[in-house]
Amino acid sequence: MSNYTKTTIGTDARVELHETLKLTGAEISVNQLPAGSGVPFVHSHKNNEEIYGILAGEGKAVIDGEEIPVAAGDWMRVAPAAKRQFFAASDSDMTYICIQVRENSLEGFTAGDAVMY
Amino acid sequence: MSNYTKTTIGTDARVELHETLKLTGAEISVNQLPAGSGVPFVHSHKNNEEIYGILAGEGKAVIDGEEIPVAAGDWMRVAPAAKRQFFAASDSDMTYICIQVRENSLEGFTAGDAVMY
Repeated sequence: MSNYTKTTIGTDARVELHETLKLTGAEISVNQLPAGSGVPFVHSHKNNEEIYGILAGEGKAVIDGEEIPVAAGDWMRVAPAAKRQFFAASDSDMTYICIQVRENSLEGFTAGDAVMY
Repeated sequence: MSNYTKTTIGTDARVELHETLKLTGAEISVNQLPAGSGVPFVHSHKNNEEIYGILAGEGKAVIDGEEIPVAAGDWMRVAPAAKRQFFAASDSDMTYICIQVRENSLEGFTAGDAVMY
């Protein structure tokens, strides 16, 4: 496998990076929700935790029925079993990334996994 | 463990989310490089792949000595063994996220791991 892969994303409603970048430890999507819209279903996961980062705009997350306001600069971890659904505000588009990784898969990291030169 | 954790990040030069969000499958950092500056060291990893997403501005990545221009909207996977270093352009700040995950740790994902309601 090459030492790196690279792509440039545009303004599609949803971009998934796993295939494009040949990821092996995560699936990452970049999502645009127009004002007043939401993901059209509730879902949970069997084995994967998801980390959501709001990049622009505002809206809300509904996690196991709890409504949580979110806005640019907010980051959330959602446990696999939690039932989740995201919505843009009625008057604001919302851009967010969703990072899907296997729960408990990370061992050493940063100083514990890096080699410095 | 709670069904979710949440934090709001500011404009610090570097924010690390693993401890704050109690992540178990990734470390995620959000990084600001002022114009003309760069990460002050070259590094690689033992076991982890890194995914970089440029959120604002422009600069370059140096991967195993190859200079790769990067700008907002660019995403890269960097293999564990690759030697990497990121720089902002001389006339542009650069904001990027770095997602560190264990190589080959993801099994099923999205439709293969989701439960729909």
